[in-house]
Parts: sequence; structure tokens; C-alpha cells
Amino acid sequence: MNLRSPGPTPCPEDVLQAMGRQMIHHRSPAFAEIVGRVTEGLKTIFETKNDLYCLSASGTGALEAMVVNFLSPGDRVFVVSIGVFGDRFATIAETYGADVTKLDFEWGTAADPSAVEQAVSEGGPFKAVLVTHNETSTGVTNDLEAIAAAARRAQPGVLMLVDAISSLGSIRCKVDEWELDVIATGSQKGWMVPPGLAMISISERGWQAYEESTMPSFYFDLGKAKTFLAKGQTPWTPAISIFFALDVALGRLLEEGVDGIIERHQRIADLTRNGVKSLGLELLAVEDRASNTVTAVRVPDGVEWKTLYQMLQDDYDTLIEGGQGPLAGKIFRIGHLGWVTGEDIEITMKALSQALPRVGHQLPEATPAS
Amino acid sequence: MNLRSPGPTPCPEDVLQAMGRQMIHHRSPAFAEIVGRVTEGLKTIFETKNDLYCLSASGTGALEAMVVNFLSPGDRVFVVSIGVFGDRFATIAETYGADVTKLDFEWGTAADPSAVEQAVSEGGPFKAVLVTHNETSTGVTNDLEAIAAAARRAQPGVLMLVDAISSLGSIRCKVDEWELDVIATGSQKGWMVPPGLAMISISERGWQAYEESTMPSFYFDLGKAKTFLAKGQTPWTPAISIFFALDVALGRLLEEGVDGIIERHQRIADLTRNGVKSLGLELLAVEDRASNTVTAVRVPDGVEWKTLYQMLQDDYDTLIEGGQGPLAGKIFRIGHLGWVTGEDIEITMKALSQALPRVGHQLPEATPAS
Repeated sequence: MNLRSPGPTPCPEDVLQAMGRQMIHHRSPAFAEIVGRVTEGLKTIFETKNDLYCLSASGTGALEAMVVNFLSPGDRVFVVSIGVFGDRFATIAETYGADVTKLDFEWGTAADPSAVEQAVSEGGPFKAVLVTHNETSTGVTNDLEAIAAAARRAQPGVLMLVDAISSLGSIRCKVDEWELDVIATGSQKGWMVPPGLAMISISERGWQAYEESTMPSFYFDLGKAKTFLAKGQTPWTPAISIFFALDVALGRLLEEGVDGIIERHQRIADLTRNGVKSLGLELLAVEDRASNTVTAVRVPDGVEWKTLYQMLQDDYDTLIEGGQGPLAGKIFRIGHLGWVTGEDIEITMKALSQALPRVGHQLPEATPAS
Repeated sequence: MNLRSPGPTPCPEDVLQAMGRQMIHHRSPAFAEIVGRVTEGLKTIFETKNDLYCLSASGTGALEAMVVNFLSPGDRVFVVSIGVFGDRFATIAETYGADVTKLDFEWGTAADPSAVEQAVSEGGPFKAVLVTHNETSTGVTNDLEAIAAAARRAQPGVLMLVDAISSLGSIRCKVDEWELDVIATGSQKGWMVPPGLAMISISERGWQAYEESTMPSFYFDLGKAKTFLAKGQTPWTPAISIFFALDVALGRLLEEGVDGIIERHQRIADLTRNGVKSLGLELLAVEDRASNTVTAVRVPDGVEWKTLYQMLQDDYDTLIEGGQGPLAGKIFRIGHLGWVTGEDIEITMKALSQALPRVGHQLPEATPAS
């Protein structure tokens, strides 16, 4: 199967082999060694010296961890949303009793830093700004550096809580330089590992907010994570196999280096966008903020998405993902993060070029026969 | 490594191979088929027709799910505790604002159902009774059937929330017959699967309590789990590999049958207890409630636990676990759940029989030389 979803992503053979390793005990020196190495490796790619923890949960669990560890009921928070995952972040904050002010931007566009600056300035002060780095539902990457700077111009020292689930490990994200206080990603994204772990880093300002927070937390209590990591452990029995896999994947990623990882994703994303356009299809995302991990494509007029989706799987062994929420049926999404090559994208484009005419989309004349 | 911890447990080769399967998409029919089969298989072993969900979390996550889905802040709840995990259940309930009345029994003993009946009767009414089926910290199995009946005699219809993390799939636990409203286990216990999934079932009475609950929940919101399972999905990206593994392990377990599984654990536990006693060691647990998944053994006088622990690993390739909390250094624990054979126990006993004299414990004369 040519799995071209924006997560889970295919995993390299050595990573899968690591998944099949026999169990070791999670409070043994052997596990402590792995946790230590994995944590340090992640910090390198996060470009941070902050504390960092792996939680046995999906990325959504990490978003919940951000809310319950650093906020209190009634806290005024500012959420920047450009799609499903920005909205989810706001919903989690509301669920736990935060007072949410949400600034929405049209889906397919990125957040405008100056609009963020103005809104925070006029509506503040806020306890925190919550923002999605890469919006997987629309294939748009926010200018996180500019947004964080804008928020800080409006309110110096405001806490930044960042969903970087589908960007960290794929798209440039300088956690320390951009002063991103709390930021999280998930193992099944650019990390080339199966789902089951979320990785989260916390700045000193984040720990100050932790001390002030009155929201209840237990499973996701990062103070407990801190206490146990000092012993090379996690508070609860962790997803050990995924640590094994992440250890191997990080070996690959660290060898490639952060710049290499970022450039590879840029190159593959360009291939994808050019391929899609050559098929006469339109991107949902504004060109200058199109994501390097997922490309959202408008379903062409007259084409039934579900038919195309099924045909791609049945006849071309290729899975791409549909739209979420109000975008269901209107877009499809091609994942190109993690363990992906130019050849994978060529296969995907070939599949699309053959399937699309069968479901009613005429290819442009310039498209080479394939 | 002869891993004799009460979780994680070693996994069979075919289960480990399943862990190494390439990713599929979690919103695809292929995954829906697995989720459906796994859910039905689990219900068979839970001996329940109730709704059942797999959460991507450790067992502690499932305990938190029980608290936040079925209780409200200020709810009076009754916790039966016989060890670390009973105390943890109480702490989670307190963390989220429940008003906890805890009845403690001496560690190493089981809860007395008549004492539970009296305390619930005198102290009630309570919104729920929280109880641990098998206390992993002390190697004691509560008489859950009698405790549930006692609680219901004291307060008909009281909600039963049960931590069966280290019993379900190993020790008899008739969820429907004993009317256990909400009950959970973890993949790394008797299920022979790596850690990362918790499995939880909910009765109709449980769903009524869910409707009344005002505690916030998002990641662990079981209403969302219900909505998504109807589509063969989970709300968030699940630990897909562990579903693969659980699917294979359940194939083995269902073939063996519930009675077979229970008898096997009984037999191996008897072997363990007899072996320990033949080495001149004492069990922590009262004899008639000693656990069939974990045996807690008093560290003999004059023996330094840490020395024994390290020696067993270094010289005998065997890992057993120490005591937790106030039992640290005073007991050790031998896990015998999941994929374990009589031979594994013999190897463990041989290791102990060789290591113990080296750390100052004289074996009884009757012990055969090994």
C-alpha cells in the first residue's frame, strides 16, 4: 500500500523491526538508557534545551496536556485557528474551563501576524496564546516565528502553547530561538514511527505557568513526568515498543541533520505541489504558506470524492485522505512527511493521473501520458 | 532475559511480528475490521455484552477515564484500597474533585466484603464504589464478586468502577454476572501484548452516570469513543501497532478459551507459590487470596534487595520486580501472567535458589540441589 496520509506514515524496515523487539522492563537501566537517548535526540531536532517528555498518547493527548498543565479555569486565552486542529485546540481549552477568544482565518490561508498582534493587543491581556504551526486539515503552515513575535509585541512574555504535531521533525521550528514555551508533536508524523507517543517540550516560563495552574491533571501531569524522567523513567507504563522504534528513527534523523530533514521535506513537497498542478488540480492552500508535510487539493468539479478514494485504493494501491469537517468531500490530502521519497510521490501522481479521468476529471493536454 | 515482572510481560513471537507490521490508515476499512474483531474478542474474555473501547494509554489512563467520565466534582465516592493501586485510584478521584471515603485494609490482605458492606451502609449514599480487583503491589486478589454484592446490599444500584488491570484476561472476572459497571485492563498484562492500550467496558448504568457527569474530559471522553467506534474508528489516532498485536494475541486467547486461560494462570501461580515456599521464603499475601498473576515475596532477613535484584539480572538473566511505596526493599514480586510457562517459573526458581545463598539467605535443607 502506498500510504500517503498525513499520519500515520509508513515506517522504514529497521523501525518496524524495532517495534517487534521483545519487552524490557520500563523501570530498568536498559529502558532508562533508551529514554535518555531519545529525549536528547528529540531536543536536537526541536532545536531546544528545554525539558522534553514523551507521553504515551496521541498528539491530541499532548494538546490536552498543554491545557491542563499550564492553564486554570477562567484563564483568558487567545487561540489562532486556521482549520480543524486550531478549532480542536480551542475546544480542549474551553472543555477545561478556559475563557477562549478565537481569531479565525479563512481555511486555506495562514494566520496574519499583524492581525494577531492587533487582536491580542486590543483583547488582552491573555494567559496564553494557542496556535497551530502546521494545519493538517488545510495543508497550511503558519508563520510561527512571526506569530510568536507579534503576540509578544502585543503582550510581552505571553505564554505560547504550540501544536506542532505535523511540523516538528519536518518543517523548520526553532523552539528556543522563537521562544515557544510549550510545543508538541506526535510519533506518527515526520518521525517515521507508528502512533502512540506524543513528545512535548516545556520552557522555564512554561514551568512557571505550571506552578500557577489549578486545572486538575493526573495521567498527563507533566510535573510527574519531570520527577520520573530524572530517574530515566515515565510515571506510568509507557508504550515501550514505540520508544524502541523512535530510538532507531532518531538515529536516522540525527544522521541526516535538522537542515537535511527540512530540505528533504521541502523538496518532496515541491514535487507534490508541481505534480498536482500538472494534473490540472488546484491547491487549497495559499501558495506561499503551503505545507511541506501535507498538500490539500480541491476535488475537481464533477468528481465524487468517495469514488476516487475507493478507486485509488482498489485499483492503484494508493491511499490519500479526504477533507475533515466542512471540507469533507471538497478536498483531498496527500501526506508527504516522514519516510517518503520522490518515487512515492511519482507513484501517487501516476495513480491520480490514471484515476482522475475515470471519475470525470479531464487532464490538461500538457500532461505526459503515463 | 527471563522477564518476570507483573507487566510488561514477554510477548509471543507472532505477537511481536504483528507489532512490526507496516502502518495502515486508522480511518480505513482495514483498520475498522481489526477494531471490530478486537472489540468482540475482548468482550468474550471480559464475559460482557457491554460496550467496550480501547484507549491509547496505559492502565492509569483508563483509571482516569473512569473518574472523569462517570463522576462529578463533589461526588461522594467510596474507595476500597488494599495497596498502591487502590490508593492511586483514590488519588485520581480526589485530583478531579470527588469527595473520597477510603477504606484501607492491611497490605497483603484482601478487602473484607462485610466491612465494605457496613462502611457503605453507614457512610453512604455514594455515587460510586471504586475497587481494585487484583492489587499488583501486594499480590492479592480481592473477592470482587463478594465485594460488589456487598456494596449493592448496602446501596442497591451503586455504580461499580473496577480496576482490573492485572486480572482481566488472567483471573476470573465475570463483568456482566457480577454487574461491574465500568472496568478496565491494560494490554501489557495477561493479554501478552506490549503496553500502550487500555481496554474499558461500560454498562448501561455506567452510561447513565456518564450523562450526569460534569467533570471535564476530552482525550479520554468515552462518549467520543462510542461515536467513533460506531464507524470502526477511534476519536484520535490510535496506537495502531498494538491493535495489530492484540488481534493476534486474542486469536490465541480465544482459542484457549476463558476457562483455559484462568486455569493456566492458576496452575502457574501454584507452581510459583510452591517454588517460593520451598526456598524458605514467605508470601506477603494471605494464602487464600494470593494472586494468580503476581506473587509478592518478603525479602528474607539480612538480604539486601538491590543486591539480589542486580545479581539476578547480571548473573541469571532474570528480572523480578521490587516493592512499591512503603514496600520498597521489603518485598519482591514475580510476575506470572500472560505468556508464561511452567518452565519460565522453574528458571526463575533456579535463579533464586542460586542467588539467594550468595546474598545471605540460607535455603531450607529439603531444597534439592540445582
